[in-house]
Amino acid sequence: MIIILNNDITKEEVIQLINKLTDLGLEYHQSNLGGRLLMAIPNAPKDFDLRQIQMLNGVHEVYQVTEPYKLASRRWKKEPTIIDVKGVKIGGNTLNLIAGPCAVENEDQIFEVAELLNRNNIKFIRGGAYKPRTSPYAFQGLRTEGLKLLRRAADAYNLRVVTEVMDLSLLDEVYEYADVLQIGTRNMSNFYFLSELGKIDKPILLKRGMSAKIPEWLMAAEYILSGGNEKVILCERGIRTFDDSVRNTLDVAAFPIIKELSHLPIFSDPSHGAGIRNRVIPMAMASIAAGADGLMIEVHTNPEKALSDGPQSLYPQQLEEMIDKLRPIAEVVNRSFDFDKVVVE
Amino acid sequence: MIIILNNDITKEEVIQLINKLTDLGLEYHQSNLGGRLLMAIPNAPKDFDLRQIQMLNGVHEVYQVTEPYKLASRRWKKEPTIIDVKGVKIGGNTLNLIAGPCAVENEDQIFEVAELLNRNNIKFIRGGAYKPRTSPYAFQGLRTEGLKLLRRAADAYNLRVVTEVMDLSLLDEVYEYADVLQIGTRNMSNFYFLSELGKIDKPILLKRGMSAKIPEWLMAAEYILSGGNEKVILCERGIRTFDDSVRNTLDVAAFPIIKELSHLPIFSDPSHGAGIRNRVIPMAMASIAAGADGLMIEVHTNPEKALSDGPQSLYPQQLEEMIDKLRPIAEVVNRSFDFDKVVVE
Amino acid sequence: MIIILNNDITKEEVIQLINKLTDLGLEYHQSNLGGRLLMAIPNAPKDFDLRQIQMLNGVHEVYQVTEPYKLASRRWKKEPTIIDVKGVKIGGNTLNLIAGPCAVENEDQIFEVAELLNRNNIKFIRGGAYKPRTSPYAFQGLRTEGLKLLRRAADAYNLRVVTEVMDLSLLDEVYEYADVLQIGTRNMSNFYFLSELGKIDKPILLKRGMSAKIPEWLMAAEYILSGGNEKVILCERGIRTFDDSVRNTLDVAAFPIIKELSHLPIFSDPSHGAGIRNRVIPMAMASIAAGADGLMIEVHTNPEKALSDGPQSLYPQQLEEMIDKLRPIAEVVNRSFDFDKVVVE
Amino acid sequence: MIIILNNDITKEEVIQLINKLTDLGLEYHQSNLGGRLLMAIPNAPKDFDLRQIQMLNGVHEVYQVTEPYKLASRRWKKEPTIIDVKGVKIGGNTLNLIAGPCAVENEDQIFEVAELLNRNNIKFIRGGAYKPRTSPYAFQGLRTEGLKLLRRAADAYNLRVVTEVMDLSLLDEVYEYADVLQIGTRNMSNFYFLSELGKIDKPILLKRGMSAKIPEWLMAAEYILSGGNEKVILCERGIRTFDDSVRNTLDVAAFPIIKELSHLPIFSDPSHGAGIRNRVIPMAMASIAAGADGLMIEVHTNPEKALSDGPQSLYPQQLEEMIDKLRPIAEVVNRSFDFDKVVVE
Repeated sequence: MIIILNNDITKEEVIQLINKLTDLGLEYHQSNLGGRLLMAIPNAPKDFDLRQIQMLNGVHEVYQVTEPYKLASRRWKKEPTIIDVKGVKIGGNTLNLIAGPCAVENEDQIFEVAELLNRNNIKFIRGGAYKPRTSPYAFQGLRTEGLKLLRRAADAYNLRVVTEVMDLSLLDEVYEYADVLQIGTRNMSNFYFLSELGKIDKPILLKRGMSAKIPEWLMAAEYILSGGNEKVILCERGIRTFDDSVRNTLDVAAFPIIKELSHLPIFSDPSHGAGIRNRVIPMAMASIAAGADGLMIEVHTNPEKALSDGPQSLYPQQLEEMIDKLRPIAEVVNRSFDFDKVVVE
Repeated sequence: MIIILNNDITKEEVIQLINKLTDLGLEYHQSNLGGRLLMAIPNAPKDFDLRQIQMLNGVHEVYQVTEPYKLASRRWKKEPTIIDVKGVKIGGNTLNLIAGPCAVENEDQIFEVAELLNRNNIKFIRGGAYKPRTSPYAFQGLRTEGLKLLRRAADAYNLRVVTEVMDLSLLDEVYEYADVLQIGTRNMSNFYFLSELGKIDKPILLKRGMSAKIPEWLMAAEYILSGGNEKVILCERGIRTFDDSVRNTLDVAAFPIIKELSHLPIFSDPSHGAGIRNRVIPMAMASIAAGADGLMIEVHTNPEKALSDGPQSLYPQQLEEMIDKLRPIAEVVNRSFDFDKVVVE
Repeated sequence: MIIILNNDITKEEVIQLINKLTDLGLEYHQSNLGGRLLMAIPNAPKDFDLRQIQMLNGVHEVYQVTEPYKLASRRWKKEPTIIDVKGVKIGGNTLNLIAGPCAVENEDQIFEVAELLNRNNIKFIRGGAYKPRTSPYAFQGLRTEGLKLLRRAADAYNLRVVTEVMDLSLLDEVYEYADVLQIGTRNMSNFYFLSELGKIDKPILLKRGMSAKIPEWLMAAEYILSGGNEKVILCERGIRTFDDSVRNTLDVAAFPIIKELSHLPIFSDPSHGAGIRNRVIPMAMASIAAGADGLMIEVHTNPEKALSDGPQSLYPQQLEEMIDKLRPIAEVVNRSFDFDKVVVE
Repeated sequence: MIIILNNDITKEEVIQLINKLTDLGLEYHQSNLGGRLLMAIPNAPKDFDLRQIQMLNGVHEVYQVTEPYKLASRRWKKEPTIIDVKGVKIGGNTLNLIAGPCAVENEDQIFEVAELLNRNNIKFIRGGAYKPRTSPYAFQGLRTEGLKLLRRAADAYNLRVVTEVMDLSLLDEVYEYADVLQIGTRNMSNFYFLSELGKIDKPILLKRGMSAKIPEWLMAAEYILSGGNEKVILCERGIRTFDDSVRNTLDVAAFPIIKELSHLPIFSDPSHGAGIRNRVIPMAMASIAAGADGLMIEVHTNPEKALSDGPQSLYPQQLEEMIDKLRPIAEVVNRSFDFDKVVVE
């Protein structure tokens, strides 16, 4: 922390400031650098409330130097984090796809999708069992039954399960069935919940809060990392802006920025960002071009009949079309397109 | 729901649209009103995903008529909801203050504050026991011990307890000690959690999500109301905008707008909106002038020593000054200032 | 400017940094304050592009100390600026009202409004002659004819004219007829235009850009002040946020914040912020309670027939009702309500 | 326009509504569609102020059907607009680059850049002569001298000139030297200025306002188109959001959305969106992948010495690297990369 003093600070104001710092247990070093009066406070805690100093007379400004997160930062860990999920690598030079329906609806639906994914060499299936809908009157998911179906379909087609934990009280249950636990945009700032996720040993896909700044998002990751769970995958899904032409504004710049600031892998969810099927493929292409490590895509074998988010779900043939279009882009950004090679397993 | 058709819609497109509507079990009524082709769909469910129709060829636009919430609306209940909390009324023509420190820190602190409130005829004490801090390295609250202290201080000074439930797993515990359960801005969209709050019988103070539109906020209230708990108090606490000059932008217009749209009482939390002590009083005055039913204010007998949010906490004498300034404003807006009269209890 | 160096900065990186600073003609002072390597750059220009240093290896962060504006700051001028407009004072302890229709429509309309204002002891009339409408197909104003009508009506009822200059090419013409020149939200960042306004001798009412941060707004004022025109009146009119429940979100916190940062008077335009007549009065009350120096209000003797913005224009009796409600609030904030006293002129 | 009536509307309310409509000269057609009372108003003007009807008793909601812009819409003109600039086509299946420094600084600089562009087969040079800086104390451009230098450099290397018109008063001068007139983000809503641009015969590159919604942007284009100038090129340059991690949030989804809604070509300006050199290339790639028709890029032969925006300017070798990376992406989106072929002219 650095305190910039007013040039006309009085002796009394200096004394009051020093008393305050002493009270707070903070060490200080003062200097006049070319006419600018400064104090450096080397031992200010990371979460120090700057306003405590800012409001004192004679203080011009207070500036917190260190970024608030540490374990999530590129400074802390230079090489990219690679997460192994049952033999499949996420991060590094691999591109991955997580695909599936918005919600698990019934056995036929989820098995059909699983078969489709396997046929396209996709390794991860997604699907909601508990559905956090904005209306209390809407379909709320198959719940436990949905988790079981998802697991069975995944096992039948050699897929890894990615699904959302909507509430801490559901953590044990979802943990049992899922390979990657998804934390939704509405829970990104539930710090109590995040702390608990630090204690488990499965990867967490942490969606960005719809109004979270990038450092806040990394701070949420820090909550999980600092609890001991190092397997965090970030996922950009669109932020809320003044522009309601789209459901959310997919912040494509987040991909290069996160790559600068952090070693964690980052995915894109263009389905939620775009909101309408025809915009999903361009946004998927843009995400990979900008540096995303993978995509989370809604796909449905019969989108017209989907119980939720049908309009943003790709048709099976669109999934294949998208993969074809992504291939040359992956090459430009030096990514190997894992799901593109036929692997006998 | 109303569907506006393209004027050049083809016969095939009409057939496809009608098939879709029939598939979805939707009744339709078509008309040509002055050259404009319309369909009205009287039985579309409140949460119908408009995009399903919007993307069909020949459809110009789809418009959802009914507001998504019902129980929370002024249309449903014309007279204002008044909530009785152990003999004190919230809403209607009464103004109330909820005051106290950001966090319960120790016995002396909370008893001092309780005495201060009682001396000023304030009926509600607030204080955090579990603290959802943005950094995992910050003070996280006294937890159960904090709840017990808050209850004891409240009982000693005839106060009602308002405190936050940070996670569903803490609901039972907080329920035991609190009179009003506060739901924080980060949980406003946790629909799973909200559903559970519909099943209890204590009032809920529902803070606005920092990026929630007003209808989304009322929809969150609807989740609680539709579960059977009619005691919802809204609380505006500032929204997130592009302007970082303040911590949050207190949306003062929310007070007259909520009064138009809903029968629920609405409070203001100018402490979080303003972020700095000196701005709290003007924002409190503005809130009451614009129609708020009460204030939630951070006050501390020793803000310099506060473990959290000290800079936005009022000094005791500022609390009194604020009450003096609010009195004539309350009169202009026809509110009786309950905490202003000395009541023998 | 302060440069915070990485603790592991190499000798080569330091040399590169120093070379860069020398190239830029910047003097530097280095220090190790308690283990934190810093450089202070006392002579960095106010508009220095920090990114030039930020991107060098070995540099942790760069921090610009001085606020970018100077003449507009409270630090520069401690006492509030009071602007005299033909004998009426704006700023200080006086509250003023500027009222009138959105657009000048015809002689009868503007004379009726002028008479209404005079009857209520209001000293400023507003009215648009050139109307910047979002649609090219809408009413664009009476132009020169409108300015003449406005001036005649003002002169007949001893009012001062406030009207917008939409474009630099119209400055001479508007200057001839107006007493206060209004710069609209869409021109707040037209720096070329602002520079020209610094050269004239009439007061400028500078509306906040709909997405301008407060320092940017003060910087726009600085453009005018630095040209030599010290008569700047700020006017908050609502910012653009994600919430489309209102036309704009009136940023009521701007009033106390501007009072902290600047000596310039600040008005509120609740008509544009609220968008609907019934919300104007509460927002006007809130603005004054929070510290505004005056209001700019749309009023029309026949809002139903208004050619633009009728729905947000007050009825004549609402104007009187508003004044009655503002009186006790003005007293709380120690403002004398100038237009409230019958003055013989 | 469609009016949805309350189901319990009274006879008096209906009469009042009909009187209002008649007063306004609006034809109406009433119907009861499946229990829903509706009125269609076929002849409501495009810019009708809905609030006039919305606020009447008995009216539930009012809905404006037709999009406010027409000439800019895909509905009006199905095939993409292709603009010929001295023999080079913009739009359709061609990708174009506009490149050059932020500001024209001196003869050597601009001729060096021009030579660089020509060597890379780029056909358009950009450069600012008048610089709209946020600070009145910053470099304001070479003005007329800059325009002349730009023209001479362009002519020497067979380039077309793109430069900004900062104010209507400068239009004649810029018109003389430029081939494409750029309208900056701060002028997008200067409707008075836009109207004048409709009267000239050179292409307009219309940057998006930093807080403009997409329909507002198209409406600004409509102003120009409706004046008779059909050569409008849109340019996305980043919007303002709550996230200050980047200078602006480049709205990549704008590319597919504009392609749906309009026939106008759309460019991307990743330099302003990204703000830092290293993020420019990924954002350029993302823009093309998402459907942009071209890029506007800041490049400088010596960015360290640039008088403005040096940090976001590419080095010459980065320009070449970017072109190499764009080539395979252009192929995926079926664009011919015009500047890639050596053309003898």
